[in-house]
Amino acid sequence: SKKTRSMGFSNRGMTLEEDINATNVFYRSADKAVIHKKPTPVQVVNVHYPKRSAAVITEGYFKQPSTTDYNGIYRDRHVDFEAKETKNKTRFPLANIHEHQIKHMQSIANHGGICFLIIRFSVYNETYYMPAETFFPYWEAQFNGGKKSIPYETIQNTGYRIPFHYQARVHYLAIIDQLYF
Amino acid sequence: SKKTRSMGFSNRGMTLEEDINATNVFYRSADKAVIHKKPTPVQVVNVHYPKRSAAVITEGYFKQPSTTDYNGIYRDRHVDFEAKETKNKTRFPLANIHEHQIKHMQSIANHGGICFLIIRFSVYNETYYMPAETFFPYWEAQFNGGKKSIPYETIQNTGYRIPFHYQARVHYLAIIDQLYF
Ligand SMILES: [Mg+2]
Ligand SMILES: [Mg+2]
Repeated sequence: SKKTRSMGFSNRGMTLEEDINATNVFYRSADKAVIHKKPTPVQVVNVHYPKRSAAVITEGYFKQPSTTDYNGIYRDRHVDFEAKETKNKTRFPLANIHEHQIKHMQSIANHGGICFLIIRFSVYNETYYMPAETFFPYWEAQFNGGKKSIPYETIQNTGYRIPFHYQARVHYLAIIDQLYF
Repeated sequence: SKKTRSMGFSNRGMTLEEDINATNVFYRSADKAVIHKKPTPVQVVNVHYPKRSAAVITEGYFKQPSTTDYNGIYRDRHVDFEAKETKNKTRFPLANIHEHQIKHMQSIANHGGICFLIIRFSVYNETYYMPAETFFPYWEAQFNGGKKSIPYETIQNTGYRIPFHYQARVHYLAIIDQLYF
């Protein structure tokens, strides 16, 4: 039915990570870009090696990632970004990002990479591209008496709304094209 | 003692991965390049959440990596490589590399990345840089009646010996400088 189809095209029920992963699969299969999610680092403490079957991790811990969620290459350029989703209606809390992730993003930007955040306001189902260089001053400000969050309006005004397409559900390359090429 | 010190400078007992990781730490701390090992992907099947302490993975499996070991950025360029060590004295067996890793490397090269293999012959303690573009024809040849391995002499002649330095134990950026800049 028409209703079912329109639901199919909408974005409800998919997490930001699922949408970006699906987008990256499409980008790779169309040979537009080669961008992957970095695996979540696991500290492996104990492994059991059964005969005739695969090794089983029987004790492991999630480690804090020291970098960002995604990286890869697009049109000869190194691309690196962090994706964050918030249920907040009025602001993006800076506590969502870790200090070492910011340090990593600053290094990437300094070395000539295309570096940014993808921020989704899930209640509005709106997803924004915010260049790392735009984000840094807000991050710094919190340590100098500034806000611990970025207002939704600021992200609307200084970021770029990422278009939704059926195959590229978070079509961030469109924003990169606009900003860098 | 003098003997202890000279042992300290030598490379015995360190795996190739440890040497490259130490090199990358040095490159990052000297702000020369931002290159990381990708975490080993783990399929998490069961997690226990104790009160007041960290989540414990109680069942997990190592997944086959779909890409390469390392990537990052150097002098504005995307860098991506695979590292392999062999105990073989006369050749590098191609079975060390997986088909999907080759596909990934071909994509990276096509999109303008600096892509290569680091191959160590551990019995000689010699480490070579082989450009992906040099490697691909040997890989392809095995499916057309060619050898299932690359002779040591071929790697000596078509690859580049990577210098050892105290802080950059596998100083592959020296080869990138020579080849690309
Ligand atoms: Mg994230
Ligand atoms: Mg390896």
